Amino acid sequence: MTIYDEALKFHEESKGKLEVAIRVPVNSAEDLSLAYTPGVAQPCLEIEKDPALAYKYTRKWNTIAVVSDGTAVLGLGDIGALASLPVMEGKSILFKKFGDVDAFPILLDTKTVNEIVDTLVKIAPSFGGINLEDISAPRCFEIEKKLKEKLDIPVFHDDQHGTAIVVLAALLNALKIVNKNIADLKIVVNGAGAAGVSITKLLLSSGAKNIIMCDRTGAISTKRNLTGYKEEISTITNPNGEDGVLSDVIKNADVFIGVSAPGTLTKDMVKTMNSDAIIFAMANPVPEIFPDEAKEAGAKIVGTGRSDYPNQINNVLAFPGVFRGALDAVASDINEEMKVAAAIAIAESVTESELNEDYIIPKAFDITVQKKVAEYVHKAAIDSGVSRLK
Amino acid sequence: MTIYDEALKFHEESKGKLEVAIRVPVNSAEDLSLAYTPGVAQPCLEIEKDPALAYKYTRKWNTIAVVSDGTAVLGLGDIGALASLPVMEGKSILFKKFGDVDAFPILLDTKTVNEIVDTLVKIAPSFGGINLEDISAPRCFEIEKKLKEKLDIPVFHDDQHGTAIVVLAALLNALKIVNKNIADLKIVVNGAGAAGVSITKLLLSSGAKNIIMCDRTGAISTKRNLTGYKEEISTITNPNGEDGVLSDVIKNADVFIGVSAPGTLTKDMVKTMNSDAIIFAMANPVPEIFPDEAKEAGAKIVGTGRSDYPNQINNVLAFPGVFRGALDAVASDINEEMKVAAAIAIAESVTESELNEDYIIPKAFDITVQKKVAEYVHKAAIDSGVSRLK
Repeated sequence: MTIYDEALKFHEESKGKLEVAIRVPVNSAEDLSLAYTPGVAQPCLEIEKDPALAYKYTRKWNTIAVVSDGTAVLGLGDIGALASLPVMEGKSILFKKFGDVDAFPILLDTKTVNEIVDTLVKIAPSFGGINLEDISAPRCFEIEKKLKEKLDIPVFHDDQHGTAIVVLAALLNALKIVNKNIADLKIVVNGAGAAGVSITKLLLSSGAKNIIMCDRTGAISTKRNLTGYKEEISTITNPNGEDGVLSDVIKNADVFIGVSAPGTLTKDMVKTMNSDAIIFAMANPVPEIFPDEAKEAGAKIVGTGRSDYPNQINNVLAFPGVFRGALDAVASDINEEMKVAAAIAIAESVTESELNEDYIIPKAFDITVQKKVAEYVHKAAIDSGVSRLK
Repeated sequence: MTIYDEALKFHEESKGKLEVAIRVPVNSAEDLSLAYTPGVAQPCLEIEKDPALAYKYTRKWNTIAVVSDGTAVLGLGDIGALASLPVMEGKSILFKKFGDVDAFPILLDTKTVNEIVDTLVKIAPSFGGINLEDISAPRCFEIEKKLKEKLDIPVFHDDQHGTAIVVLAALLNALKIVNKNIADLKIVVNGAGAAGVSITKLLLSSGAKNIIMCDRTGAISTKRNLTGYKEEISTITNPNGEDGVLSDVIKNADVFIGVSAPGTLTKDMVKTMNSDAIIFAMANPVPEIFPDEAKEAGAKIVGTGRSDYPNQINNVLAFPGVFRGALDAVASDINEEMKVAAAIAIAESVTESELNEDYIIPKAFDITVQKKVAEYVHKAAIDSGVSRLK
């Protein structure tokens, strides 16, 4: 039986991967007179007077929506909202398991930016945060931006920022091995989708100076006639105005970050990179280049999205702890400071004695990592002024 | 400590009355390769091909939204969506406890009929049903009607139909005691809000012929210049065109059903009713008339909304079993046939030997009643053609 047949059987037998559970005693009429009528009137009236008390008297403080319109699901593409539900249930159980966050799937039967934003704004009251998932670019950028403006709860698009956080963590540790400074690096990000854009921005806010992003046409630069988010990218990257396709701009690069397609990075290209090259080839399941080939061509450190090679870039290291920390801080936002803090927490989870070129990033399912992430993010929320704790 | 102080403490200490729980093993990378990537892709692809398979591979089959805009919460009125969350969490735990239904609160930050309808239609994919709660009349009628037209999952406004079902159940048993036939009764329904309208319609579809509904002005009849739902009510009730206020039309009535305000039914009015009068005085916590007064004035059977008097009309007897039955039948709707079936199940839960004027309705927290309701509703869904079971 293949893993796909097995998974089908697993889903049929489980009859759903999550459920709603009761946290209070409901065994007598007395219990229910507190949990429901008439007692429940009192917390209602308190919240009516002071909305912040919803965090005290209800589950809002720990509850997030896992939201998708089903347009960019895993490697499957636009399969529609309903068909994405198995993924959203899966994501929700990861949130619970690794972050003790109550995550509930909300599927959106629309692909229109404004309708998605309006719908989420209207159902926001019961949630303490919103995790956007598997929404295609460029709509995901606009949706997240508008929601952040309109809502006072954290909004986080995991495909963008979860990936960016783990890439930054991996890079920070890789640099310790090759003894380079982030400000001195030439970094090529191949793939200008949701993840690529967020990785680029997070690396810039962590001190990177020279990032070149490539889309299918080649290097993004101000010389190209670009609009929308690519135009914005062109103004904050590629300071030397390099032209050409990947094989051109990869020359003398220190770092390759691939969020693109299988096999797009060849051995010949790797050979033109700087010494001690770092390669994160995250196309999944077939990476931009396989680790053994990259190493043969001279790369020093290679990471992929796969669990069967060293250095798996897996955003489960980030998102549960990020929301745990944000919720614990009653944060109104998840900002760049909190994302950088999460990356540092992940990087620091690999001790100096453990660190080597095949172990720059901790194992995906080590709950102590997510706890450290939560702690760092919580502190960053307070330090950056978005916590509402008194 | 009053029950209200106690309830506040209870809510603060519980930190939320419900949570999201994991139903599958997630202890190893192997577990997660089935519950999440890569295995999860398979149920996604199956659902993309056949949307009905969402009921097989996800929790949709057992999950409902408990939806409110906070406009008519308990006896508190329009306290806003967020402040209604303690009630919606409470309702959700009743759904789980008595119906094993996974109910999740969705609060709507809008009071506009079309916005509410549009929002719910857009978030419907992950739900197997929608329970509307504490939405004020007349908007609740329109919202429910439009949702029923647009969605293929059951939509049920509990304040209307839950109450109507339990009233019908109580009436069916009361009639066994007084030995009258529903078709021969003169019934006065006092209060033309959500519950009153639904009670009237359900009694009509159960064989009642002569119902007079009163609003604050008096008897609703075609002689008054009415619009909207009251105009509709005027055409299906009051066949003899009776005029006047409650004290006029109550004369010779067999049944008084109050969903109105404290103290609106006087002893003098009861004295003018037919012999063996049946009175359901459901204003809460202070009923239209207290049971002892009603009996002194000659009433035979009295029910109220209170647990400290006999014959409590409590819709927890209905809604968990109604949704359990509808979900088990994969019903596309909750129709009149299913509501009548629920009422019969509740009525039959009182055995012939138990039945007496102070015990026409079973105890609220007897799970065997909800199971019987589920069974009858399930069967009625199949018989009436709204079940999608093959």
